Parts: sequence; structure tokens; C-alpha cells
Amino acid sequence: MSLKQSEAWISLSQHRRMVAELHLRDLFEKDPHRFRRFSLELDGLLLDYSKNLITEDTLRLLLDLAAAADLVGWRQRLLQGEVVNHTEGRPALHTALRSSASAPLLVQGKDVRAEVREVLARMEALAEAVRNGRYLGYDGRPIRDVIHIGIGGSDLGPRLALQALAPQHDGPRVHFVSNIDGVELAACTGRLQPATTLVTIVSKSFTTLETCANAEAVREWFRAAGADEAAIRRHFIAISGNREAALAFGIDPQRLFPIWDWVGGRYSLWSAVGLPIAIGCGMDAFRQLLQGAERMDQHFEEAPLERNMPVILGLLGIWYVNFMGLGSHAVIPYSERLRVLPAYLEQLEMESNGKSVDRDGNPVGYATVPVLWGQTGTVGQHAFFQALHQGTQPVPIDFVGIVEPLPGYERMHEQLMANLFAQSEALMRGQSAEEARRQMAAEGLSAERIDDLLPYRVFPGNRPSTTILLRELSPRTLGMLIALYEHKVFTQSVVWRLNAFDQWGVELGKQLAKGLLTALRDGSGMAEHDSSTRGLVERYRAWRGLD
Amino acid sequence: MSLKQSEAWISLSQHRRMVAELHLRDLFEKDPHRFRRFSLELDGLLLDYSKNLITEDTLRLLLDLAAAADLVGWRQRLLQGEVVNHTEGRPALHTALRSSASAPLLVQGKDVRAEVREVLARMEALAEAVRNGRYLGYDGRPIRDVIHIGIGGSDLGPRLALQALAPQHDGPRVHFVSNIDGVELAACTGRLQPATTLVTIVSKSFTTLETCANAEAVREWFRAAGADEAAIRRHFIAISGNREAALAFGIDPQRLFPIWDWVGGRYSLWSAVGLPIAIGCGMDAFRQLLQGAERMDQHFEEAPLERNMPVILGLLGIWYVNFMGLGSHAVIPYSERLRVLPAYLEQLEMESNGKSVDRDGNPVGYATVPVLWGQTGTVGQHAFFQALHQGTQPVPIDFVGIVEPLPGYERMHEQLMANLFAQSEALMRGQSAEEARRQMAAEGLSAERIDDLLPYRVFPGNRPSTTILLRELSPRTLGMLIALYEHKVFTQSVVWRLNAFDQWGVELGKQLAKGLLTALRDGSGMAEHDSSTRGLVERYRAWRGLD
Repeated sequence: MSLKQSEAWISLSQHRRMVAELHLRDLFEKDPHRFRRFSLELDGLLLDYSKNLITEDTLRLLLDLAAAADLVGWRQRLLQGEVVNHTEGRPALHTALRSSASAPLLVQGKDVRAEVREVLARMEALAEAVRNGRYLGYDGRPIRDVIHIGIGGSDLGPRLALQALAPQHDGPRVHFVSNIDGVELAACTGRLQPATTLVTIVSKSFTTLETCANAEAVREWFRAAGADEAAIRRHFIAISGNREAALAFGIDPQRLFPIWDWVGGRYSLWSAVGLPIAIGCGMDAFRQLLQGAERMDQHFEEAPLERNMPVILGLLGIWYVNFMGLGSHAVIPYSERLRVLPAYLEQLEMESNGKSVDRDGNPVGYATVPVLWGQTGTVGQHAFFQALHQGTQPVPIDFVGIVEPLPGYERMHEQLMANLFAQSEALMRGQSAEEARRQMAAEGLSAERIDDLLPYRVFPGNRPSTTILLRELSPRTLGMLIALYEHKVFTQSVVWRLNAFDQWGVELGKQLAKGLLTALRDGSGMAEHDSSTRGLVERYRAWRGLD
Repeated sequence: MSLKQSEAWISLSQHRRMVAELHLRDLFEKDPHRFRRFSLELDGLLLDYSKNLITEDTLRLLLDLAAAADLVGWRQRLLQGEVVNHTEGRPALHTALRSSASAPLLVQGKDVRAEVREVLARMEALAEAVRNGRYLGYDGRPIRDVIHIGIGGSDLGPRLALQALAPQHDGPRVHFVSNIDGVELAACTGRLQPATTLVTIVSKSFTTLETCANAEAVREWFRAAGADEAAIRRHFIAISGNREAALAFGIDPQRLFPIWDWVGGRYSLWSAVGLPIAIGCGMDAFRQLLQGAERMDQHFEEAPLERNMPVILGLLGIWYVNFMGLGSHAVIPYSERLRVLPAYLEQLEMESNGKSVDRDGNPVGYATVPVLWGQTGTVGQHAFFQALHQGTQPVPIDFVGIVEPLPGYERMHEQLMANLFAQSEALMRGQSAEEARRQMAAEGLSAERIDDLLPYRVFPGNRPSTTILLRELSPRTLGMLIALYEHKVFTQSVVWRLNAFDQWGVELGKQLAKGLLTALRDGSGMAEHDSSTRGLVERYRAWRGLD
């Protein structure tokens, strides 16, 4: 039976018509306990979902949908290491990377927990040696900088964590190089010295075009500075699932860390991919990050579905996408330290669930992942919030706030938080014509001016948002926050009947790029392309003077 | 008559059903001249719109719609300085900021062109004095750094331009502080020295919460370093429309630059708001930026609508939003130097047209601005492109590419461009089951494996994109590119019958934030808020230990 024919789906479609008649402002007025009813708290993380366009019936029906999709069964399959990634024949065991359990967890006869512990110990040894200055560069000086080379999941996780944890960052500076246009690379090579720079290269396959090209270019930079091969080996660390290719590149086996095939790139932050976090902030901080994620794993595994944060977040998303027809979802962190979070979640959600064929190989027949986007607040308030308040298209929003201020900025932080709370309130309640008139009168506007402006000063309200409050932004709460979204995404994949852990949709572009590279270089093979692609290549070649 | 009742709208709705039967791959196969037909070039900027889901009939009908909305008349009203921003009683004359015309253009009896020339001369004098080391800080050393304080339009324009023009940046470094959480500010004050730092403060009203708080904090940083008031006056520059408030803050009249009320924040890059660009890259570069924008202004004014780049871009957007029902639009620049472009355009488009009440004060009754979002390529390919290729929701994309490589990175740049062209090709043509089988066979997969994977390796294609190729990323082409989008946005506002130049939707949040600030500080006034907002404030106060 298809999802759309399930009783829960049909009931939700009917229920949606009733909800379309409601306004959040009335729901709050009628129910003084709405916040208590629709909020959850866990170890310094508050999830307030009361400003969503739901009633208790909505949640009940959504939970029926989750039951119809066997969420409980799939959760167990995920956590126990079954082959949930069926197209690649693998489990998805990012939860094992942060598990403190000691009972063996076998994948193809190997205890992954023992392997994880061993890698963590190796990471710790390396990170601490670099941090305390015992790990010396080729001219005998300690390491001052790290260039981290990776793209996608190999890049976004460490990038997010190191910006979020900047106040704890007391080790060598970490610089990120991901794109292949040379801009980030040139910024590094122009400022740093090879002799005091460590290079961490992350590629699961060790064939990623951008990462390999940047790694080669950095190696050339070492050579140009006079470093010999032994010196280079000392400065290059690889994190890869392709041992042979990494060794062939010249990585010392001692400086090679694994990525297991049961860890997807966008779930790899918790593996040795997080090495720059351990070097920058210390292994203690990295272990706290893992502990935070594990705390959320336990909650996801143990909490009843109706009090389960990732399940609630996932089902709310399904409600908006599949029943309210909303095609995008915004994440607005009120902290510059979380400015990478929207891009991180964009990958996590859209690469995991941006699919239209279900686990059985059939077209899904319903909408799946929405566009995930966002910027930090209050910055966004001065940019695109106009459309969130008065545009024609409602956008559900996740606001993320941090209660603890940056030391020395307490007064400014109060302003920040007042704005965060005011935005969700304004979006929810709106402003009626009567209120707008009163407001303009209070501003001293003339009666005529009030009449002219009135239509533009009315806000429809009823625009949904969720607020996630963190008591502080620590390694532990960051781990909780990311794991919360990981399990949200998994919840949605189960309801949508998708495999969240493959990404076949990136292959075709890679394939075509190979042929086009030759075309750009020598103009050959153009006949097989459409006139647009031909026209672009011809213009490129003409402007480069290659004709 | 409402827009939806116009003949053009009705014809487009019917035409849309026909287009739903077409596939771009077939359109290219049937018409070898499609690229020539649907591309335009202007001074080193190529606009290829042939990979959009249109036929010649689509464009003709869209042009009818533009005619029905009197686009030609509104264009004239805009450029001649009529009061197009009717709710604020002002013209919108960002085009006058970059006009080389000498004939007077009068606004309220004053020749704005003469005023613009005078301000440009003052900017030049200041920028050149800072750049050549004659402008000395309070301890007699030249200026080495600029802290630019602004938010929204006061921030995004200079930020975009200075990142895009980094190779031309040979003056003092420029640092940006916009948010109120202290993170960017602390990064500046922790590294820089007041005695060699100039501060540029941009706020049209000089009451912007974030900007005023950051300006105060930077002034305190000067004081803490021992600078007296005369010294501080020497280091602080303001760009504002509120002369009195800027003087009251302590700005020296000589160091105060105007923002005229006929320049909106999101269109202000071309005014003295661009001072940091002139300081960083020189006044010549800033004037070339203006010249590029003026070139696009002329094109917008003079080119027939069917060959007019901003008009074409604007109408394509309307086609997708209003007739194909697509709610988001992505901008993907293949250059880290343009990494701010998506955020810049997000503001430009969503703040200008994120509205639902028309110029006559009536609800529009049709969708207006889509969600604008994006990241750089190739980075996005490793993040969210999965959903663009195989998700259930088509997203029209603007790709932006730069033909000239960064010197020293020519080979990597070829890879970058091959990927850019391959993505638009892959999205357009997709991959049929037969092609997927052939591809997997070439990869050496077994027949059984091919059968299993087949549904996941099929790509529907028919996903639209536009490619903008710049011969190089120079001040001039950057000016052209930004002005192209400004006029695109204006074109859409005319069809949607919106005033693109006000932003009443940001007021309610500001209003509510004032009350909530008091509540956060002393817990008062909570009864008037909903239980969610109360719950959040209470949790905040409890976690801060304020109860």
C-alpha cells in the first residue's frame, strides 16, 4: 500500500482543511497551556514547537503516519547496524561513532566500537602532540596552522564546529580549503608557512576532484618552499576510506585515519574527519561533542514518540511539506558562531532526502525534502524578513538561540534575544488593521497618512516557527543540536520511504564534467552536446583566447 | 482590472498546460538555433537563458504581460525620478548614483547629479588620503585597517564587492561588523589597534539598533586604549541620512557623508556606503563599478524588451512563480569570490518584492517573490545538488561563471568551469533508463546490480537554469551584474504591481522587541504575551540566573 493510501495520510488531508480555518493567535488565546503542551526540554536544550500550525489532533495523526511507516522498527534497524543503506549494501552507523557502550557491535564480523575507540585514541595522541608543541614541523618549529582540505561533508562539519566553538579554540588555527577555484587556497598559501603548517586531507574515496587537486597544489607549495618528501610526509595527514590511494599519494600509514564505509560524508563529523576540531579545541572538547550527540541518540531511542524531539521535528516538516504544500524551510540561528548551520543542514537534509524514488524503486508520488535555507538573525531581519512577514508564501522557520552571552557583550546579547523572541511572536500573531491604526496613531501619523499606509502595515500572522534554545553553545550542546537534526532527517526518510544514506543524484554531473573538460581544453567532442552547452563552451574558449 | 483577469495572464495559464508536455531535451533537438535564439551578450557578460522551460510563444506572452503592466511607462518613471516609492513619497534613484549624464536631474528642486558628483569627489579625497598614507591615525601612524559597521544593505553591498574584488584590494584591510552578538566585533577588537584603524558607520536613520550598539562598543574600545575625543573624531566616519543624530554621536561634519532619502538601503552600494570599496581598491575601481552599473542601466533603458536582459530575467521568474508554481529560486556562483552573492540577492529580491499588497492597497491574489537561496559551486554539488537533480521539487537556477582564471590556478579553473557547464547540461537533459543502463554497464556492474540500481540512476532532467558568464570578475562586470538583478527585481515589481522600494514588513518585529527587552531584563509585562513567548522569556531568565 502506498503512503498516500494509508488511513493516516487520508485523515491528515481532511484534517488539514480544518486547520486552514485556524489562527495561531486564537489557539494561544484558547489554551493557556499550549506552551507546556508543545515544548520539550533535555539537558540545556529547549524545543518550543507551540508556534506551529498544529493541534493535538494534528500530532496524533502525524504519529499515526509514523506508525504506519514503522518508524519504531526502522529506528531499531538504524541503531542496531542493519543494512539501512540498501543501494550501497551498508549500515549507517554514525551513532556508533559517539557511543560509549562497550558491548561489541558487529559489522561484517568486526566490532566497530573497538575500532572507533582505537581511532579516537590515535586522534587524541596526534591532536595533543600538535597542541602541546611536541609535534614539530620539518624545520623544528611547532605547528601553528592547519589547512583542512575537504568538500561537502568532509568540510562542513569541522567548519561548523570550529566556528561554533571559537571561544574554546586554543590550539593551532584551522583554515578551510574546499572549492577548486583557488581562492581559499591562495588565501592560505599567501599567509602561512609550510614549515609550521599541518595539512589534513579528507576524502572518503580519495578521488574527490576538488580535494585531490587542492592536496596536490598544497604539496607543490611545500616543495616550492624547499621541503623534501620526508618533510612533506610529516606534514600531511589523510582521513580516507581508500587506504591504497592515500598511501599512493604519499601519506605515511601512521598518519592515515580511516572513514568506514558505514559512515556517510554528511554524517562524518564524529569520525576522524573531526580531527581539526580536536587539534583546535582539544580532545576533551571533541569527546564532549560526541557525548552530546550520544545524549540525543539515547533520547531518540528511548523517548516515547510523542515526546521525542527529532520525531516531532521530522513530523512537523512532513506536515508542512505534504499537507500544507510549503516548499521551503528556513533555519535562522541568532549567533554568528552558528553562521554555517544553515549550509550544514542544507546538505544534511537535501542530500539525504532530496529524492523521488522509494526504497522499493518506485516513484514516491508525493513531495519530499523542502528547500532548506537561512542566514543568521538579526542579520536576516535587515535582509529577507520582509518576505517572511508579508510575502505571499509562508515559510516555516527554526529559530536557534543561545542563552549564555559572549562575555563582555551582555547588553548587546539581551537585544539579540529580545529580537529573536519578538520575531517568532510577530510572525505568529501578526498585526490586525485595528492594531496597525493604533500603532500609527501612537507614532503621531495624521489620519490621512494612516489611511494611506494601513494596508501595508497589516501583518497576516499565523506564520509558524519552532524555537530551539540552548543554555550555552558548548561542544556538548552542539553535539545534541546536530544529532537532533540527523534523527529528524532519518524520521522523515522513514515516512517518505527513502534511503537517506545514498546520493546517486550527484553522479550524472560528474560524468558529464569529464567530457566537458576535454571540450574546454581542445574544443573536441562538441557535436554530442546541446546548442546551449556548445555555446557556453565556445564563448569560454573565445574569451580565454583558445580558438 | 486585476492582473489575473488580463488576457495575457489567462493566455499564459493555458499555454502553461502545453509547456508541461515538453521536455527541454526535445526542444534542443528540434531547434539547432535555440542557444542563439535565447541568449544575449553585452560587454563581456553573456546571458544564456536557452535552458529555461520556454518557447518563443512563452516569451511573447510574458512580454504581453509586461505590456499590460505598463513596464515601459514604469521604467521611465523610475529612471526620471518620479515618486515610484509612493508609501514613503520618494523616487528611487540608485541609477542617478552611477549616471555620467551632466544634465540636471531635479528632486525637490535640487540637482541630484551635482550632489552625487560632489560626494564622489569627497569620497575620492578621503579614500586616496587613507590609501597613500597621508591620513594619519591619532598616534601619527597611517591607517592599516577599516572596521565597517552596518547591517542589511549597509553591509552586504560593500561585503560582496570587497570579496569579489579581492585581487584588486591593495589598500587597508576592511573588516565587517554587522550582528549584535559581539562575535564579529570581538574578532576585530582582539586583533586590531585603534590607532591604525578607521571606523565607517553606515545607518540611514542613525538609529539602527545593531549599528549604533556596535559603534558605541568600538568607541569604548578606542577610549579603553587611551584615545581622547579628538582622536576618536579623527577615526570615525559616518554615512547617514540623519545628519543631526550623526553629529550628536560625535561625528565630525567633514567626516559625514550623506545617504539621500531617494536611495534605499539595498540599493545603496553605489553611494558613499561604498566608501570601504574605494579605500580598499581605490577610487578608480569604485568608478569602474559605477560605470558597469551605468552600462546595464543604459541597456535596460534602451534595449527592446525582447532583447533586454533584466526584463528577460524578471519575466522568467514570473513564469516559474506564477505559472509553474515554483516557490524557490537558486543562485549558484562558481567562484568563492562571489560567495556573498546569494545573500546579497536574497535581500535585494525578498526585501523588495516580499509583499502581498499592491500599489493601490489591495491584496495581490497571486504569488510574488520566491525564496531566493544558494551557495557557491562546486561546493553545492557536494551538498544539496542531490535534491536539485532528483528531488521532487524543481528549482530554477541562475548559474554564474567567470571565464578568467585566478592566475596560477588555470588547470583547477578548467575543472571548475567543466563542472559548471556539466551541471546545467545534466539538469536539462537528465538520464533515461536506457542511458543509465549503458552507463552502469560501462562501469562494469553486474546485470543484477544494474537492475537493482536502475531506478536510482535515472534523472528526470527538464530542470531549468540560466547561465550568466562574465569574461572576468572586474569592478565593471560586477557593477553590470548587480544592476542586472536590480532591474530584474524592478521588472517583477511592475508586473506584480508592487512598490519595490519600501519595507513595512520589518516594523512589527522591531516594535515587539522593545517590550521584550524590558521583559528579559526585569520579567515585567509578560501577561500581554502568548504562553510560548512567556515560556521562552522565563526559560531565558532562569538559565541566566535572573529569577
